[in-house]
Amino acid sequence: MPRNCILLATIVKIEILNTGSELLLGSTANTHGTWIGQELVKMGLRVQRQTTVPDGEAIEVALAESVSRSEVVLVTGGLGPTSDDVTREAAAKVLGVELMRDEAALRDLKAFFDQREKTMSAVNLKQADVLVGADILPNPNGTAPGIYAPPRLGCAIFLLPGPPNELYPMFHAEVAPRLKALAGVEQVAEVRELKFVGLGESALHEKIDAPLAEIEGLEVGYCARLGEVDLRLIGSPDVIDQGHQLACDLFAEDFVSDDGSSLEEVLVHHLREKNFTIATAESCTGGLIASCLTDVPGASAIFEYGFVTYANAAKTGLVGVKEETLLKFGAVSEEVAAEMALGARVASGADIAVSVTGIAGPSGGSEDKPVGTVCIGIATSEEVVTYREIHPRNRKDFKRQVSQRTLDLVRRFIAEK
Amino acid sequence: MPRNCILLATIVKIEILNTGSELLLGSTANTHGTWIGQELVKMGLRVQRQTTVPDGEAIEVALAESVSRSEVVLVTGGLGPTSDDVTREAAAKVLGVELMRDEAALRDLKAFFDQREKTMSAVNLKQADVLVGADILPNPNGTAPGIYAPPRLGCAIFLLPGPPNELYPMFHAEVAPRLKALAGVEQVAEVRELKFVGLGESALHEKIDAPLAEIEGLEVGYCARLGEVDLRLIGSPDVIDQGHQLACDLFAEDFVSDDGSSLEEVLVHHLREKNFTIATAESCTGGLIASCLTDVPGASAIFEYGFVTYANAAKTGLVGVKEETLLKFGAVSEEVAAEMALGARVASGADIAVSVTGIAGPSGGSEDKPVGTVCIGIATSEEVVTYREIHPRNRKDFKRQVSQRTLDLVRRFIAEK
Repeated sequence: MPRNCILLATIVKIEILNTGSELLLGSTANTHGTWIGQELVKMGLRVQRQTTVPDGEAIEVALAESVSRSEVVLVTGGLGPTSDDVTREAAAKVLGVELMRDEAALRDLKAFFDQREKTMSAVNLKQADVLVGADILPNPNGTAPGIYAPPRLGCAIFLLPGPPNELYPMFHAEVAPRLKALAGVEQVAEVRELKFVGLGESALHEKIDAPLAEIEGLEVGYCARLGEVDLRLIGSPDVIDQGHQLACDLFAEDFVSDDGSSLEEVLVHHLREKNFTIATAESCTGGLIASCLTDVPGASAIFEYGFVTYANAAKTGLVGVKEETLLKFGAVSEEVAAEMALGARVASGADIAVSVTGIAGPSGGSEDKPVGTVCIGIATSEEVVTYREIHPRNRKDFKRQVSQRTLDLVRRFIAEK
Repeated sequence: MPRNCILLATIVKIEILNTGSELLLGSTANTHGTWIGQELVKMGLRVQRQTTVPDGEAIEVALAESVSRSEVVLVTGGLGPTSDDVTREAAAKVLGVELMRDEAALRDLKAFFDQREKTMSAVNLKQADVLVGADILPNPNGTAPGIYAPPRLGCAIFLLPGPPNELYPMFHAEVAPRLKALAGVEQVAEVRELKFVGLGESALHEKIDAPLAEIEGLEVGYCARLGEVDLRLIGSPDVIDQGHQLACDLFAEDFVSDDGSSLEEVLVHHLREKNFTIATAESCTGGLIASCLTDVPGASAIFEYGFVTYANAAKTGLVGVKEETLLKFGAVSEEVAAEMALGARVASGADIAVSVTGIAGPSGGSEDKPVGTVCIGIATSEEVVTYREIHPRNRKDFKRQVSQRTLDLVRRFIAEK
């Protein structure tokens, strides 16, 4: 953990153990870790470790390790009716208790099949087996009830079904209240993520890490994504406010959101606030900028027209780029970007138009204009500004980064208006 | 494991150790386990265990356990420039070796910043630190080089960067060849993934699972994604060929690729082969279809013009939809989709034009046209066909699904030409 760590309750040490060969073969994404992590953070708790093992005997080995290390283990999967579903048996061995068929669970199981006018198979019977001394966690959405084994050997165990539509409701109804009781707290810390765009992780870190470290009781984390960096603050609300204030003082222009909003959501919000409409003229991004804008609900209030002018003929035909400008400066030039933006603004009647023209690669580069070169234009009725940058990345990442960069340039441009 | 399981080498015991507090807090989905699992399966290898730990000292503890248990450990994350990036240090302690600044790595690091016309921060220096006796794995896409520590204490360690756009190319270029050498086999089983589009997972499963189960030595897996389903066949080349043949006999029209090619890659290839150009007129997908097409290198040969006609005025102004058609049938209608496609074809001079108009939501639906309704048009100089469908999903998934569905309709349309 970071040196200035305090934080979310380590009052209870919690681990997740996900079982299922399909998770390790990569045929199914393991979304449970993410989902449970989020739910625990909302409760002021956090996961210490997450482990995935295949179906079979590896479950018992890993569960024994988790039990020896932690105070709560959440196990998902392996409660089904087939021969490779052995989580119940593994838990019984680790805890040294017996399995017993539970009459109430058996009734629920039979009712589940009756309700669907289906016949229960003999293989389903074992789904009514419960650890002695444990609680049954009802599963209205499937055949596998969950099991809660209260602390024994210093550790409580929850056995939970794998399918998300069964796991999620069971977590809320049965697991969360028991966890709160175990932790004995309502909420010990808050988490806030500040998003910055147009700033590298190292640039952010260099300026802010030392001053943040002086705020007692504040835990700090960094997470870089293509074109953005998130600063994670964990602590009590007032130390988070201090860190937040510091970050926004140092990087006011790069700050985008503190509530998880994406760059495009923030930009659409700003445009709506200022009552500006925007049009796009895209070459190398091929429609991605328009698509990002229209990912945001309510985008139609600020976005009406987009042009994807992939060919030169489309640049001259749709947004009025001059033949001689193309000939003199080439399609990837600030001059062409300026004409694209100006032309798109006039053709659309929008308040602002933005344009991009560049070389996405893998081919098409030259010494003068290597792959990754891009020219960006922003036009209003009063002015046009252009930018020339290099983003040497693979084709898809180039498109995504240029798109985010362009949206960010527009965000900065209108911030000054 | 699937009942007809054979194989994949447990010749080498491989573990994945993912580091990063954001993974356990649930702010970032852990996609690395899935992705690496898939890549290893393709090589005839499989993962024994996957663990996630937070940044900080937990890395050293977990790495020591993994090293004691396995023959290869793939560690992701914690190679960044900030104070919570401590994976290098943890590996040095576990292996009992020193870290040394590597001059070649330092040169690469400086070149990375120079190429982007940026200044390197002092905090980046430690990214050139390497375990004594280890190989540097070059990272052309980021500042953190990977590290390969050859077997010591019976275990080889790969330290890999967290960002996917850095990890994936490094895995292919640097990790895969070394893993093959460590495993001492070229390939013990082959893996082939057949991609089908326009077909549900259960529909595929229902028809094909029983006949595939009769092919001895064939392991089968299914993976459904938005609008597509992959059928994974694992076994010797000849049993895979049998399964492949069976699948393609049953689902000839839905089959898209057997080499990992995406739907848009296959479509661009077909269009180039037939020497067709295509134009797009998009309302509800907001440019996403054009963006998908232009994700494919060489798209400029078949795609020149795209129109994003988000507002009604754009539909009439850019692609000649008639006011009375809009008034009579509404913007989301097969009639408007037809006129959009016809108009886009004429305005662009393309051989084929495709159009979409629909209700992405969350608002804007009616009883007659609920959220998720979409009308799609395909026009050539000779005909126009339209489709009306409902895809009730959240806004982004709706856009993605409609975009894929539209590309698939074009694929089917030109297959008949």
